[in-house]
Amino acid sequence: MHVLPAGSVSTEPADLAACAVDQGPVVDHQLPIAVVWAQSAEDVQMVMRAAHAAGVPVVCRGAGTGVSGGAHATEGCLVLNLERMNRILEIHPEDEIARVEPGVINSDLNAAVAEYGLMYAPDPASYRVSTIGGNIATNAGGLRCAKYGVTRESVLALDVVLADGTLIHTGHRTFKGVAGYDLTGLFVGSEGTLGVVVGATVRLRYLPAALETVAAFFPDVAAAAAGVLAVGRARVQPAIMELLDGHTMAQLDKEQGSSLRSRGAALLLIQTDGYAAAVEAGIIREVLSGLGGDIKAADAAEAVRLVDLRRHSRGAEVDDDFRVGEDVAVPRSQLVNYIHQLQDIADRHGVGLKVVAHAGDGNLHPTFWVGPGDVAKVPALNAALDESIDVGLALGGTITGEHGVGQYKVRWLGREQSEEVLELQRRLKDVFDPQRLLNPGKALPVAPRVG
Amino acid sequence: MHVLPAGSVSTEPADLAACAVDQGPVVDHQLPIAVVWAQSAEDVQMVMRAAHAAGVPVVCRGAGTGVSGGAHATEGCLVLNLERMNRILEIHPEDEIARVEPGVINSDLNAAVAEYGLMYAPDPASYRVSTIGGNIATNAGGLRCAKYGVTRESVLALDVVLADGTLIHTGHRTFKGVAGYDLTGLFVGSEGTLGVVVGATVRLRYLPAALETVAAFFPDVAAAAAGVLAVGRARVQPAIMELLDGHTMAQLDKEQGSSLRSRGAALLLIQTDGYAAAVEAGIIREVLSGLGGDIKAADAAEAVRLVDLRRHSRGAEVDDDFRVGEDVAVPRSQLVNYIHQLQDIADRHGVGLKVVAHAGDGNLHPTFWVGPGDVAKVPALNAALDESIDVGLALGGTITGEHGVGQYKVRWLGREQSEEVLELQRRLKDVFDPQRLLNPGKALPVAPRVG
Ligand SMILES: Cc1cc2nc3c(=O)[nH]c(=O)nc-3n(C[C@H](O)[C@H](O)[C@H](O)COP(=O)(O)OP(=O)(O)OC[C@H]3O[C@@H](n4cnc5c(N)ncnc54)[C@H](O)[C@@H]3O)c2cc1C
Ligand SMILES: Cc1cc2nc3c(=O)[nH]c(=O)nc-3n(C[C@H](O)[C@H](O)[C@H](O)COP(=O)(O)OP(=O)(O)OC[C@H]3O[C@@H](n4cnc5c(N)ncnc54)[C@H](O)[C@@H]3O)c2cc1C
Repeated sequence: MHVLPAGSVSTEPADLAACAVDQGPVVDHQLPIAVVWAQSAEDVQMVMRAAHAAGVPVVCRGAGTGVSGGAHATEGCLVLNLERMNRILEIHPEDEIARVEPGVINSDLNAAVAEYGLMYAPDPASYRVSTIGGNIATNAGGLRCAKYGVTRESVLALDVVLADGTLIHTGHRTFKGVAGYDLTGLFVGSEGTLGVVVGATVRLRYLPAALETVAAFFPDVAAAAAGVLAVGRARVQPAIMELLDGHTMAQLDKEQGSSLRSRGAALLLIQTDGYAAAVEAGIIREVLSGLGGDIKAADAAEAVRLVDLRRHSRGAEVDDDFRVGEDVAVPRSQLVNYIHQLQDIADRHGVGLKVVAHAGDGNLHPTFWVGPGDVAKVPALNAALDESIDVGLALGGTITGEHGVGQYKVRWLGREQSEEVLELQRRLKDVFDPQRLLNPGKALPVAPRVG
Repeated sequence: MHVLPAGSVSTEPADLAACAVDQGPVVDHQLPIAVVWAQSAEDVQMVMRAAHAAGVPVVCRGAGTGVSGGAHATEGCLVLNLERMNRILEIHPEDEIARVEPGVINSDLNAAVAEYGLMYAPDPASYRVSTIGGNIATNAGGLRCAKYGVTRESVLALDVVLADGTLIHTGHRTFKGVAGYDLTGLFVGSEGTLGVVVGATVRLRYLPAALETVAAFFPDVAAAAAGVLAVGRARVQPAIMELLDGHTMAQLDKEQGSSLRSRGAALLLIQTDGYAAAVEAGIIREVLSGLGGDIKAADAAEAVRLVDLRRHSRGAEVDDDFRVGEDVAVPRSQLVNYIHQLQDIADRHGVGLKVVAHAGDGNLHPTFWVGPGDVAKVPALNAALDESIDVGLALGGTITGEHGVGQYKVRWLGREQSEEVLELQRRLKDVFDPQRLLNPGKALPVAPRVG
């Protein structure tokens, strides 16, 4: 019989606490009964068989950088931690694929394949810390997803341990393949509720021959958002198109020693790549100058620094403001409108607003905030947040562009999807996990809404 | 109560015969009991409700250009023909999306969005005749999928009528969205076995500013296939990378009056696009010349003609040879090896071989053939075909890169996927279609294999 390696299980209070929550808002704080670190697919199978036999819920955990509470512990659960399964099993430069264990850190994979002139395209801002398994379970987006697509577009095949411990392989090593239903795609983004990802075959892309970065400063966010549409109308596809508002710039200046805010009240940070990077950047500069943008052609070192700053624009906050944030995505034409409405919501509720956006994809991360200690304003914060979700939906948007539903957004899913669609998903879930042990209470509202 | 428009139903022998089969090999010829042409989602709902109540199987049909028998009638079935639901409902140039009914012809959509500088990327060689609904149901590939991805990568949202007549909406109008399980992706490629696609929201891409076409002739197919890998090693991503062998070239010359075969015994037809088209084509020319390719920089008119010829390289055969063909995809590094093995298989079985390939994706369409009337050789043809599938799988490939399993390839699916994976899919199918009325006997082997 398979035995877990020594040191695989802990019930130490510090370990339980460390694995109790991710970076998302905590709705219902619970400590797991134990944490198990798997080192192999066999370990995972063993854990799942035991959990299945005992009826114990299991919450998978990568790096715990999720921001929707997907990895939050639930009552009486075991946390199955995949971070030690961190081997890159294969890099095949001619097949342009890599096979990895789920605990591999995104940037480690990218560093390893860069030697071959290749990249793993999906690059969440958390790429230096988050795991490929977590990226897959959330269908993570990232900066260069504007051009290269989200995680799903780079995952060819998966090894998955099902709730009863069965190990299956889905998908194909080839770029294309349509044999059977797309189980691979179904597991991507399922937030650990359908199975445990224990291996992945991912597609690699060519590292671009050149990068060109354009930083365009605008007097206000609406003007910057209009710039996004204007670049689209010029039919140029940037690799990266990020928007930062004045509050975000000021905060970065404070934390990182930059001086962005003095240049404007909104920044469009655009990167083109490939052999046409310079030509495309030239067109973009012309378009944005025409809109009144203060354009800067960043030199290579500054470009890296700017993109790096953008990656720090979320999650690194060290002050103790109260804040709530989301990741609504809206159709691109609604970007300007939505930002206006967000500001209006913030004003009416008397709270601050800060926005960063993967603007090329219409995916916004607005944060409503109030000053340190201003606990009386928390209800206003939550009311603003709720309203921002409804407005995003009314504009044809979705409640979550890339962070997942997790635990925190379950209450909103029924505003976006019909009861028939929710019920269909519950029945799918029951096919994979009839005992409902995998990440219970996440991703889907459990019971039908009443009334 | 909703009533079907006049002229919606036919039991005329000619209509039944016309809708009995697609372009795939016929395993079990059946006439439907009737053909119904839907003109609206309500029509489809009504048909499905009636079929559900009466327990009558339903086979969806777009243009019937499928080559796996997906649209073949099955015993006692109704054919639900979607070709009259052919309206483009919306083109939104700023959101970069279109909403269409399922019967819209691929090239009609492309013509309509081209006015806005946009394109619908997936372009099966059948794009002038096949429907978007059929493309979605098969997850069709195409020439420029090498760069832009297959149909799944361009489908954002679907309207689907379920087996019991319920109309649901899946997905989102935004480029990104991770709310709930990826039902949209699950319907894509499900070959009419999970629901009827009655509407689709598709993502549009920018029409490239420039196209450059390279035609490289080689002395043999292996040399051309080596060229595919060499272009990859140069880390240049073509939009189109097609391979045609000598037999295909000769046949095109005969049918289309071209003179390809005189230039070589294999042709790599490569198109680069966008602002870097010329630079990238230059690199490709250098790489392929180095391998002994006889390179031609095609002028614009000739480029169109060459790509057009390629689109005719399948399905337009007018002679009466016996032939069997497939669409195995292999990992790119195995292209040369697989083509050598295919030739060896053909030689050993004493049959001819003809190959075209979406080579950039490792997706081959080998055809084994024997001369007109040579019926005695049919068993040898089938033996060669069967062997080619096993060899493709042994090299890490899949039985179908883009055409789907349909009726014809059901017998091979168990060679690629484990019984656990097949069983999981059967249980998913049962969630959507518990009575098993939607396209029975297609896409999945019905009963577990015995022994
Ligand atoms: C500073 C910062 C920046 C961020 N930027 C982005 C961004 O740009 N884009 C973006 O999409 N997200 C971003 N995120 C959110 C987060 O990093 C992503 O959701 C990431 O994919 C989570 O990976 P993880 O390894 O931390 O997973 P975890 O947080 O540990 O888990 C996330 C979910 O996946 C499940 N899970 C984890 N591993 C497995 C597995 N092997 N099998 C099955 N289920 C599993 C968990 O149960 C949970 O539901 C950011 C977060 C931070 C803190
Ligand atoms: C000359 C030629 C070239 C081709 N080139 C390519 C190519 O390059 N790439 C490629 O992928 N394929 C190619 N094909 C195959 C074929 O054109 C594709 O499979 C195409 O997607 C089928 O579309 P259709 O409208 O003809 O669908 P049909 O053949 O009518 O149906 C295909 C399948 O989809 C189902 N279906 C159709 N409409 C719906 C709907 N609305 N809802 C649910 N299910 C539905 C049917 O039941 C069937 O299972 C080619 C075929 C020919 C004859």
